[in-house]
Amino acid sequence: MNFLKKELENIKNKGQYRELTYLKGSQNKYCSFEDKKVLLMASNNYLGLCDDERIKKVSKDAIDNYGVGSGGSRLTTGSYDIHKKLEEEIAILKNREAALLFNTGYMANIGVITSICNKEWIIFSDEFNHASIIDGCRLSGAKIVVYKHSDMKDLKQKVKLYKGAKRIIITDGVFSMDGDIAKLPDIIKISKDNDIWVMVDDAHATGILGEKGSGTEEYFGLKGQVDIQVGTFSKALASEGGYVAGSYELIEYLKNKARSFIYSTALSPIVVSAALKALYIIKKDNNLRKNLLNNSKWFQEELKERGFCILESETPIIPLLVGDEDKAMKFSKMLFEEGIFIPAIRPPSVPKDTSRLRITLMATHIKEDLNFVLDKISYVFKKLK
Amino acid sequence: MNFLKKELENIKNKGQYRELTYLKGSQNKYCSFEDKKVLLMASNNYLGLCDDERIKKVSKDAIDNYGVGSGGSRLTTGSYDIHKKLEEEIAILKNREAALLFNTGYMANIGVITSICNKEWIIFSDEFNHASIIDGCRLSGAKIVVYKHSDMKDLKQKVKLYKGAKRIIITDGVFSMDGDIAKLPDIIKISKDNDIWVMVDDAHATGILGEKGSGTEEYFGLKGQVDIQVGTFSKALASEGGYVAGSYELIEYLKNKARSFIYSTALSPIVVSAALKALYIIKKDNNLRKNLLNNSKWFQEELKERGFCILESETPIIPLLVGDEDKAMKFSKMLFEEGIFIPAIRPPSVPKDTSRLRITLMATHIKEDLNFVLDKISYVFKKLK
Repeated sequence: MNFLKKELENIKNKGQYRELTYLKGSQNKYCSFEDKKVLLMASNNYLGLCDDERIKKVSKDAIDNYGVGSGGSRLTTGSYDIHKKLEEEIAILKNREAALLFNTGYMANIGVITSICNKEWIIFSDEFNHASIIDGCRLSGAKIVVYKHSDMKDLKQKVKLYKGAKRIIITDGVFSMDGDIAKLPDIIKISKDNDIWVMVDDAHATGILGEKGSGTEEYFGLKGQVDIQVGTFSKALASEGGYVAGSYELIEYLKNKARSFIYSTALSPIVVSAALKALYIIKKDNNLRKNLLNNSKWFQEELKERGFCILESETPIIPLLVGDEDKAMKFSKMLFEEGIFIPAIRPPSVPKDTSRLRITLMATHIKEDLNFVLDKISYVFKKLK
Repeated sequence: MNFLKKELENIKNKGQYRELTYLKGSQNKYCSFEDKKVLLMASNNYLGLCDDERIKKVSKDAIDNYGVGSGGSRLTTGSYDIHKKLEEEIAILKNREAALLFNTGYMANIGVITSICNKEWIIFSDEFNHASIIDGCRLSGAKIVVYKHSDMKDLKQKVKLYKGAKRIIITDGVFSMDGDIAKLPDIIKISKDNDIWVMVDDAHATGILGEKGSGTEEYFGLKGQVDIQVGTFSKALASEGGYVAGSYELIEYLKNKARSFIYSTALSPIVVSAALKALYIIKKDNNLRKNLLNNSKWFQEELKERGFCILESETPIIPLLVGDEDKAMKFSKMLFEEGIFIPAIRPPSVPKDTSRLRITLMATHIKEDLNFVLDKISYVFKKLK
């Protein structure tokens, strides 16, 4: 096991060693990291529903009705009526014939990509796609052609270069480290012109983008144009688990073929019930989403006015560029001391010299919170200089 | 999407089309598949804890304390004190310095194998290993050498044939379709003699085998001999999620390297709390485990006395061999009509002509239940002839 020690030292020497910090209590805007109470500006709990009383109530009822674990895989003894209901409801939100739950978004991507693609396929993959897409592509055995991030010229050129009967473009809907939205209208056009499938991972878009919170497709008014929709219940929908939505045939095919679906114990009915309740809530209440996006817009304007360099976004993800790795780390640490949690994101998660503070807003943040953050960011920035 | 339709037809023509059956209510020995109440002889809920009142109580408390979703990945905002606690407790059960949670056993295997192994490695893998081990091996890029199921002569020969500095033997502790236990003493000997690592997936052994329920290693009195321990909370431990246990360095390394750990939202504190409570229960109460294994022994004797061909096992998994695919399916269907759920397992899950009824016992089954099953199996078998 000596090789592990050496590798750990390597990681430490590169300054890339990661340690865990532990929360006490729930994922609210104010939360306790170990013993420090901080304002959380870093959660994927975008709509603030993780601690919602209505969802908690339903989750407790689920414990009464279903117990705790599901006890088996979906094809043996682990399929409950509540799994089916959630699949029906997420299919409706995504405007699709059917949907299938996976235990995580990671397993959804691995499952769908390896079921569909093999050596005969060419996958065009955005260079900033999530790790789970990358792992799914690798495991599939397909030819992987990476195109520059949201660079449609590069995608077009590569589509011309790599011909074949079985091709697919895979992209995140919203890119998690940059907060930007995929250029879906262009991607759809390229796909139609060249008879290529399109798959979108809407992990950060579902519940957030579009009039009904359906995601990237709805945001661009491209209803039904994407062949394979992937997403998660662990972000805006405040629970856990992933899904694939698409045609009836696609979903039946995945039930029979997707190894990460077939060979894994089904999600606990508790978290499935929680996700279902979150879906009902966001269906009824547009305001959560709208306030969040308005706040994000306002917050970005304020940051720019204060002279900060941000990657502008139409999502709750706001990267504040710092550049230098150490400086970003220090920035984050000093903010923590001031009572705000915003993590520094550095290589290898983002390209060299683009280290950043990754701010994410929640629907529960009010102007008072955001003004507090703006003041503290300015204060720490001055101190850092 | 025409290719999907064709593939589905292929699957149907082969008689391998799979459909889901939905449960109402919890995973108890009596449960409702759609509207039919049956005696469940097929659950991985081996100790019957999925519906345990103590665990349900703790899970509800967790909802009060932590809310529902974890809101982030483990390295961002999704690590809670309860995750840490479960990691500490599972490390103790497995006699290891440390442990790390993954969202599923599938992700644990994928994560640990791809972090450790690469093109420089040779993996010796039992031919009956779980799909998640196979997928992890494939994704790692290592040279995969499959040895015949539990065939130590074959393993030895292959170890001689495939030399290299970085080698690992990977095996399930208990094989899920056959119920047999890996020949760990031999495997450990081969590994020591040849300086090869050993990894064991104790998904079906944790909480079941060994005096304290620690698993395969304890069962054979080989404490601390296995380099990497993998397992799951979704079977005997009645919840969901997977883990890796091992040296402090191994776990620190995985925190920094395992992509399926880093790039996935953390498990909900609810299911983590449930798993922790289940661990406490099995620690205190050896009887659940002992009764289960005694019942399994007794049940196997009774089946043999009635002339059935079974794969004998020292686990709660008892395969009753039927051979022919259609006959096995019919057998299962007729038992269902008689009020017993035992699935037929057929190719591609098991080799051709070894289709079987896969019976699994739970600690909650009493002799009366088992006698009922024995009678019905005999009755249906006669009718089938």
